Amino acid sequence: MINVLFAALPERWDSYAPALRKAFDDAGLQVDLQQNFAPDLVDYIVYAPNSTLQDFTPYTRCKAVLNLWAGVEAIVGNQTLTQPLARMVDFGLTQGMVEWVTGHVLRHHLDIDYNLERQAGVWDKHLPPLSRDRPVTVLGIGELGGACAQAIAGLGFPVTGWSRTQKEIDGITCLSGEAGLKQALSTAQILVLLLPLTAGTENVINAESLALMPKGAYIINPGRGPLIDDAALLAALDSGQIARATLDVFRVEPLPAEDPYWSHPKVTVTPHIAAETRPGTAAEIIADNIQRAEAGEPLRFLVDRGAGY
Amino acid sequence: MINVLFAALPERWDSYAPALRKAFDDAGLQVDLQQNFAPDLVDYIVYAPNSTLQDFTPYTRCKAVLNLWAGVEAIVGNQTLTQPLARMVDFGLTQGMVEWVTGHVLRHHLDIDYNLERQAGVWDKHLPPLSRDRPVTVLGIGELGGACAQAIAGLGFPVTGWSRTQKEIDGITCLSGEAGLKQALSTAQILVLLLPLTAGTENVINAESLALMPKGAYIINPGRGPLIDDAALLAALDSGQIARATLDVFRVEPLPAEDPYWSHPKVTVTPHIAAETRPGTAAEIIADNIQRAEAGEPLRFLVDRGAGY
Repeated sequence: MINVLFAALPERWDSYAPALRKAFDDAGLQVDLQQNFAPDLVDYIVYAPNSTLQDFTPYTRCKAVLNLWAGVEAIVGNQTLTQPLARMVDFGLTQGMVEWVTGHVLRHHLDIDYNLERQAGVWDKHLPPLSRDRPVTVLGIGELGGACAQAIAGLGFPVTGWSRTQKEIDGITCLSGEAGLKQALSTAQILVLLLPLTAGTENVINAESLALMPKGAYIINPGRGPLIDDAALLAALDSGQIARATLDVFRVEPLPAEDPYWSHPKVTVTPHIAAETRPGTAAEIIADNIQRAEAGEPLRFLVDRGAGY
Repeated sequence: MINVLFAALPERWDSYAPALRKAFDDAGLQVDLQQNFAPDLVDYIVYAPNSTLQDFTPYTRCKAVLNLWAGVEAIVGNQTLTQPLARMVDFGLTQGMVEWVTGHVLRHHLDIDYNLERQAGVWDKHLPPLSRDRPVTVLGIGELGGACAQAIAGLGFPVTGWSRTQKEIDGITCLSGEAGLKQALSTAQILVLLLPLTAGTENVINAESLALMPKGAYIINPGRGPLIDDAALLAALDSGQIARATLDVFRVEPLPAEDPYWSHPKVTVTPHIAAETRPGTAAEIIADNIQRAEAGEPLRFLVDRGAGY
């Protein structure tokens, strides 16, 4: 029997427990899944970084911590965590992100808001360019960003992708480094932020980088809130340098009711839904990783503690 | 020298004349393009059905009428038109339609309007299903509908296509006939209308067909206004049977300011922009067809007068 601790907010239990039990059964794993165990009996921890569990020291037998979230910045620096840590990269999360990003790229490309805001009997043709004439830049082309970049390119947009280390993705102009970042920003009529949050990426979107973008560009942030210097973005929206911003992530979540983003006419707030993990597909990934660990095989999506993601 | 008459609204001349002249030059055609010719000197007519030219009798030498629009219902029944008539099927028109349809399918799938309408400081997670769990039906899977169906399927939606005659398209469940139409409607959480307008398709969306659809479905009409029984659609929106409708085409265009569609909270009106012909790409198609006619080859996209499209 394998003891698996579910360490996430208690309200997640009802949706995850049946999905996990089904995935363990399907994988042929004999698992006891509980929200409470004596720490020294736990073999694996299914983990959400907003769990009350923050001290991993007593989990002496634990072979791996399997994160339910794609982002690990809230846990990767925890000095008590010495076990292998795996990020969540599930089909549902990636696919949901691709759908959300593609939908908002097309919304801004077509300027659908222009039609929604002008339902006043005025027949005003306002024709967008074709996608081939609308360059899109994706900052961060890992699992999520790469999938989004390819979906956007599949609709005919010229897509530039930027990452810390140089990558090669079919159909995407891949750039890296400081000079590459400036070049990627300079053509970005629509900018999608999917960088991990590290010391090097915090406030990557600031007054200077916003000024490098084409006037009237759109910003879509389903990545991490602190990638953006909020005051600089608000100023760029007010000046018209940035036409609209769609933001799914924030420095403080839930976004406080008094935050100026809520009321800004050029900002759309969505409540951190772009990459919501779906229990069914996530459970399959977790069962697969436990199966690998039990067989002595390397975990999938293992976090590199040095890089921070 | 080939004499080509440009018979469209005069305000179109400034955007089309340079594009057509460039395309004729690129094709090596010696063309005199004008808005006025003595009728018996005209070799080809570049035509928009809202042109003042409605009597083709005097154009005795004309070898073909090359329509600038995808729709030909306003011209196909003209008894004075005995010359071959070609529809417009241009890259820009098809691509523009694919972008518009895909954008509005994703907008409704993600319920982006829910986020846009609730910018009130309320952090309310409202998670859509994944695309694989959102069946989409496209009525009309010709040049435009087929391209849209494939783009939507490419994003993971299960897509059913319906047409008068049975078709086969990779990755699309193709249906035809009366029973096929009922089946296609019964699963349509999002319905896209791209049928040609014929006696058989007028009011295809009526009280009976709306009742066959899943409750809370979305309707997107970039095809032709009379495909929809407007009173029946308004009733279905008011009852909640249909969640929202996005309409690009209408029985009367421009849509009159007093039309109830403008003010209905569940209806988005766009001003016939989904398949706007782009001068640059359309001119390339027209030049290609003149080149074919001059070489004695069959025209591309020739209209079948019997079928009406």
